[in-house]
Formats: sequence, structure tokens, C-alpha cells
Amino acid sequence: MASRDRMLLAVMASGPGAHVAAWRHPAARGASNIRIAHQVAMARLAERGLLHLYFVADTPAARTADLGLYSRMPLYMNELEPITLLPALAMATEHIGLGGTASASFYEPYNLARQFASIDHISGGRAAWNIVTSANDFAARNFGLDALPPHAERYRRAEEFTSVVLKLWDSWEEDAFGRDASSGVYFDPAKQHPVDHRGDFFTVRGALNLERTPQGRPVIIQAGASGPGMEFAARVAEVVFGSNETPEESRAFRDGLRERMARLGRDPDGMRMLAGMPVVIGESEAEAEDKYATLQALIHPDVGRGRLGMDLEADLSGLPLDEPVPEELIPTSANFHRKFHDTIVRMIREERLTLRQMFLRYDRGRRTVRGTPKGIADTLEAWHAAGACDGFMMMFALMEEGLGAFVRDVVPELQRRGLFRTGPDGATLRDALGLARPAHPAVG
Amino acid sequence: MASRDRMLLAVMASGPGAHVAAWRHPAARGASNIRIAHQVAMARLAERGLLHLYFVADTPAARTADLGLYSRMPLYMNELEPITLLPALAMATEHIGLGGTASASFYEPYNLARQFASIDHISGGRAAWNIVTSANDFAARNFGLDALPPHAERYRRAEEFTSVVLKLWDSWEEDAFGRDASSGVYFDPAKQHPVDHRGDFFTVRGALNLERTPQGRPVIIQAGASGPGMEFAARVAEVVFGSNETPEESRAFRDGLRERMARLGRDPDGMRMLAGMPVVIGESEAEAEDKYATLQALIHPDVGRGRLGMDLEADLSGLPLDEPVPEELIPTSANFHRKFHDTIVRMIREERLTLRQMFLRYDRGRRTVRGTPKGIADTLEAWHAAGACDGFMMMFALMEEGLGAFVRDVVPELQRRGLFRTGPDGATLRDALGLARPAHPAVG
Repeated sequence: MASRDRMLLAVMASGPGAHVAAWRHPAARGASNIRIAHQVAMARLAERGLLHLYFVADTPAARTADLGLYSRMPLYMNELEPITLLPALAMATEHIGLGGTASASFYEPYNLARQFASIDHISGGRAAWNIVTSANDFAARNFGLDALPPHAERYRRAEEFTSVVLKLWDSWEEDAFGRDASSGVYFDPAKQHPVDHRGDFFTVRGALNLERTPQGRPVIIQAGASGPGMEFAARVAEVVFGSNETPEESRAFRDGLRERMARLGRDPDGMRMLAGMPVVIGESEAEAEDKYATLQALIHPDVGRGRLGMDLEADLSGLPLDEPVPEELIPTSANFHRKFHDTIVRMIREERLTLRQMFLRYDRGRRTVRGTPKGIADTLEAWHAAGACDGFMMMFALMEEGLGAFVRDVVPELQRRGLFRTGPDGATLRDALGLARPAHPAVG
Repeated sequence: MASRDRMLLAVMASGPGAHVAAWRHPAARGASNIRIAHQVAMARLAERGLLHLYFVADTPAARTADLGLYSRMPLYMNELEPITLLPALAMATEHIGLGGTASASFYEPYNLARQFASIDHISGGRAAWNIVTSANDFAARNFGLDALPPHAERYRRAEEFTSVVLKLWDSWEEDAFGRDASSGVYFDPAKQHPVDHRGDFFTVRGALNLERTPQGRPVIIQAGASGPGMEFAARVAEVVFGSNETPEESRAFRDGLRERMARLGRDPDGMRMLAGMPVVIGESEAEAEDKYATLQALIHPDVGRGRLGMDLEADLSGLPLDEPVPEELIPTSANFHRKFHDTIVRMIREERLTLRQMFLRYDRGRRTVRGTPKGIADTLEAWHAAGACDGFMMMFALMEEGLGAFVRDVVPELQRRGLFRTGPDGATLRDALGLARPAHPAVG
């Protein structure tokens, strides 16, 4: 099993790249998450770098309004679907973990439990499910609703959904399928444990039709940073994605999660926190800055304006690009992302930037770290040493170029410093993450 | 594209084998549909034989009652789930079609449409979806119901489900994703065609988030042999599985389907009918009979008794094995499978067989054909020449042994006779089946 004092590394499968304009960059031609060959190449590259996890985000919807903007900003657009993609990647790789998002709001727990169990079997114990509740009305409309249910109801549903999935994954004890040809008994009926769940959202009475998986059960990922999200994560998550700007904030988030776990009677070491880390790597600082500036310059003004408007929660559509944004456009309060909102308000109020200057500077979410391989290694080392996280979810502005540089130059640097593993440890993702294999409740 | 006068061949992925006792046979040790390595080996073997389709049946449930019987008769028990299995097989094969069952009763149309579209992309145009309505109360209980809805309601739901899936597969015109890096336009909004469906069972308003698939859309399989089933198949199916005892019955079934299609304004050549063909192959007739008898002898008395009781719709549990079955046990009418019921009644009334003799003889569904490679080829040729079908769904009593013999000895014999293709034809499953690629409605 993995040493717990080394860092964990995951990578976000981002097609051309995590940067909003990556697909326009010459280095990303043909790089698309709809192409299985591209995904295979990226997963193999990550595996060559001994990364622990190849992760596929998802939303079950396409935008069907504001297409003038979204046709220029193709988020989650034209991508392979995770539950079908992960088994394909399992066949093309040997030891890297394979994680994917599936929405507890728009799926049936029996189908999800069975499919992720199946992926765990196919991959020899490398599957991880990222629970989300989907924050998107376009998704809701694909599933019979006019709009998303309120946040609290989605979380209640997700909690019940997950509890059913966990029970289904315990449908069978470890050695239930003895396949005794001579007596003619295929499985031991006493080792079947059917679920009998009657809840607010689901009624599920039955057992999965496949045996306990190589990992006991797939690894559970959860990313909620809100209060209810953290409570939920503290109860069920084995891997948590964080998105914080500084090691101090990240450490506070991780410590908060661990405290909640301890309060709930869970061993805090049963959870590994990965900090989101968007990077651009260059041979020199200047080259890294240049690469980043090139990408920012590829942001179409409509996209730049649209993203700022969304996060400021204001209509910026009529504004001239090269004049300061009038202060009177700032709404009195933010409904969605307070942090993004405040960042933009600061640029308007304090720096009096033009619209173009703002969107060339604006990084939605966490600021992209630019640096040399050594500089990036320094940042990862500093965060890790500060107890800010157990590892990182790497996001490469340009996927192939960035992951390539990371595997070639940053990983060896981390290994030289004794911070990263030098070979696969154990057969399953749980082994690699240093998470214990859950015993079946009937025998545990 | 495929010549329409040659026969099509598909194979049922049956783990150890299609025979109820196959898993007890020494030749099937380790052969299980839960093992991806076994499925890969079988799909590759079928591909080596140029078979058109590797097909995976499914039911989303495990028995949780009568386990004394079902622990000895593991139907659909401990198998990989088709939607996750097919993409894995796509990576391990190059040109064979990959079909799987998914239930319209227990799935969301948006999820299914997106996942099969994704599989079509991953496989380069080799995906086929077999629509079923699931005839199993154990499945219903996994999805919040006490029992299955009535047959007619399940079909109405399946028809609506399928119409939504078909519309979602037309979310985007052929060349909607132009990815014009210089202008910054990723897709052409005019080529998006969102679904706006409000029906009795589903309300779906939105578009898939992936581009039109390599086959235009995945191939649709349907197997319903009932009246409503045939109407449904005539409307939507591109491949139909038949299960008839004689070429005459099979031809009548196929002709009936084609007539219904013509009446509905569909070109009958847009459907290919595959006749179910369970076989045991031996080097001599006697060897084939021996193999079959060996398998029959492996049927545990509880299983033999249980299967007869189910199809006779009578409780045979107390009966001695080696005495004739009392006539007074025969129910006055059959509720489920009239044909199976009548077969058993004949054995009791006319032949006065003992319970053991009956279950050693009884073949649920279509009688297993036993023969030499030449004999099997003769049977296939005779059916095909009689217009009984467009090809066959081969079911091997012992999977690996049977498929191996078929590929080694029967396929070359069919090729020598000019009845079967000698190389892959075209890139997609549609090409191989001789089915046209559907044009998008907006341009067709």
C-alpha cells in the first residue's frame, strides 16, 4: 500500500485543455474528448508518469440557449460519456485509477451501482465514482423537470442515493460465488444480502447481479465545498477535490473535513484531499507567462464578456471592450459564486480595468500557476508540506502539452525530492491511495 | 456494403455456455461473463470468424427468492453489465459489431441515448442497442415498483422511450461541430435540433452533448415475438431476433414482420431477421449427441424439476424422479409460455415419461441442433435458402468449445459454399449488416 507521506497526483481529462480557449490553440488540434484515441493517449501518458487517477468530469446536458456565446465556449460539449469511457480506458491502461462523474439527481441507484461495480471488475479494481448533484437547469429539462430542485433537496436525494448504492455494493459477501461444479451450487444463498430500502426518494429491494468487486467497492469521490457538501463528504467521500487559492485556505478546508469526519466517528485517514491545481509549464518563467498570455489572447471577446457577466451577475453585452467598466453595473449582491463576484468587483472598483483587460486577466476559479518544472514542483511541495492537501488534481491549460511536460519534467523532480512514488504500489486504486479495502458488514 | 444474399452471423455471449448446466462442465472452468478476459477472448474469437455481432443479453436484477433453485441455475447471475462491457470490448476488437440489452422500463432515455451514442463513437460505429421491456418482478423491485407494469403499458412506455432516444440521436446534424479555431466558433448553432418531447411517460427537452455518431445512430435490435412486440419491431427494429422451431415458422415470422413494415411505409429491407440457433458441434453425429447428453446429465435434479415446473406452471417439487408424472398435475391452462407448456404436456400425456427422463430431454425454447460442422452448415443453409431468416444468432451450449469449433470448421464450410463473407465489409456495423446510414431528418 502507498506511503501516506508521499503526494497523490490526479489529472483532469480536459480534451484540448482546461483553458477556456485551449481548443483554438494550434497545439491542441484534433485533441477532443470525443476522440477515444485522444483519451487513450492522455490516460497512457498519465500512467507513464505514475499518476494515481485519470478523472473525467461530466454534466448530462448540452446548452440549448445563448448559443451565440456557448458555440464559442464549448464546456462539456462533445465529449464521451464517463460510464462508457472508463471501461474503454481500463482496457488501454494497466494500473492508473479511473474516475468519472455521474449525477445522483438524474440516475437510478441500481443502474449506477451495477455499472460502477462492473467497471471495477473490468478494470481490476481501479474505478472511482464522483457523486455530483448537477447544478444546471439544462440537465433538469432532459429528465422531466422544468428546473433543478433546490440545493438542499438535491443533497438529501444525493445522500439517500449514495446510501442505496453503498448497500447494493454489499449485496454479496466476498466469497459468495463458490461455483462448486461437483455439487452444482453456483453461489451460497446465505451470502446474499438483499437491500430493503424505502426512503423519501427511492424504494429499492433487491441485490446486484454481480459479485463483490476487486476493491470491495469502487472509491467514492465528492467535491462539495458548501456546508451541506462538506457534511456529505465527511460522511461518504474517500477522495475530495478542493478548489482553494492558497495553501492556508486549502489546509483549513482539509482540516475542517477531517474534524467533521472525526465527529461522525470516521477515521479522517479514510479520506484523501486533492487540491485543484491549474498549471502552465514553461522552460523558463517567461516562457510559461508567454504561453499563458497566448491562451488568454485566444479568448474571444464574446466569451470573455460572457464569463465575466455570468460571475458578476450583470449584463455586460453592450459595453465597449477598451473602456473601464462603469461601477453602476455592479449588482448589490451575488447569488451564485461570491468569490468570483468579488474578484471582478475588485478589478472594476480598485483597478479600473477595461473589459478587455479584465477578461485577459480573469481566471475563473483558482488562479493558473505558471512556472518552470522546478517552480511547479516547489509549489506542490510547499502545499503538501503545509498540510494543505494529500495531493493534487492537476489541470493543464493545454492538455497534451502540459501533461507531457509534467510527466517528463515535474514528476522526476518530485521523485528526486522523495515526494512522489517511483513505481505502482498495489493492484487497486485503493492500494495506490492508501485507502483500506472495506470489509463486508456481515463479516467486518 | 454487405451483399444481401449472404447470411449474417451473430453470437450470444453466454459465459460458460448457453446450456443451463454448462458452468458445471470441465471444459467451461473459469469461463464466466464476469471475467473481462473471457469476454475479450470470446469476442476476438468471433471476430476471427468474421461474425457480424457479439451480443450481450441482460436483466437488471438478481433473484432474491427461491435461492435453493436459483443458486443452482445462475441465469444472468454474476455478469458484467452491457453498457460498461461493450466499450471495453470495443477496445479489444476491430470490426465486429457489439450489441447489448438495456431495459426501456428501468432507464432514463437521455442517459441511454447518450451512452449508446458514446459507445458508437468509442467503437467507431459498431454499437447496437437491444430494446427490452424486462419481464421480471425482481427487476421492478430494484426500481421502486412492487411488480412489473402490465405488458401493454410496458410496450407503450418502450415505444415512447425509443421515440425519444431516436430524436435525441438527431440532436445534431452531421457536420455541426466545425471547430473553427480561427473564428472561434466550435459548433454551428443552426445545426443543433433540441428535442421538445412531452409524452405520457417522459418529458425531455434538450440536446445530447455529443456529435452525431459514426453510424448516424446505433443499430436498433428488438426481439418481441408477441403481437404488440411485432408491431413495435416493425416500426423501429433494424435487427430482429427470432426464436422458432422450424424454418417454416421462422419464415412466417419474418414475412409477417416484413408485411407489417410495408404497411407502415418502411422498406422491409431495412430490417434483418436473425434466427436463434442453439447448437452442439461434434466431429461425428455420435460425438455431438454424446456432448449434448453429457450436458443434459449435468442438470441437477432440482434445476430440471424447477424448469419443468415453471413452464408447466405446476408444483413438481414433491415428485419422485423415476416415476411418470401424474396427469392430474397438469394445469387446465397456461398463463405464460403456451408453447413450452404444450411440449411438457405432450411428454406427460403421450409419452408417459418419468420426471428425470423429461428434464434430460427438455430443451427450454428452441431445440438444440446437434451435428457435424457439415451438418450444421447444412441446417443454416437450408434455413437461409428457405427465406426463414437473414442470418442466425448462434448459441453455443459450451461457449468457448462451441464457438471455437464453429469458427474453425463451420465458417470455412459456409465460405466454401459462398454463403458467408470472407472479409469484413465496410467500417461500421450498419455496413456489415447491409443497412443504410440514416440521414439526418433536417437534410434527408
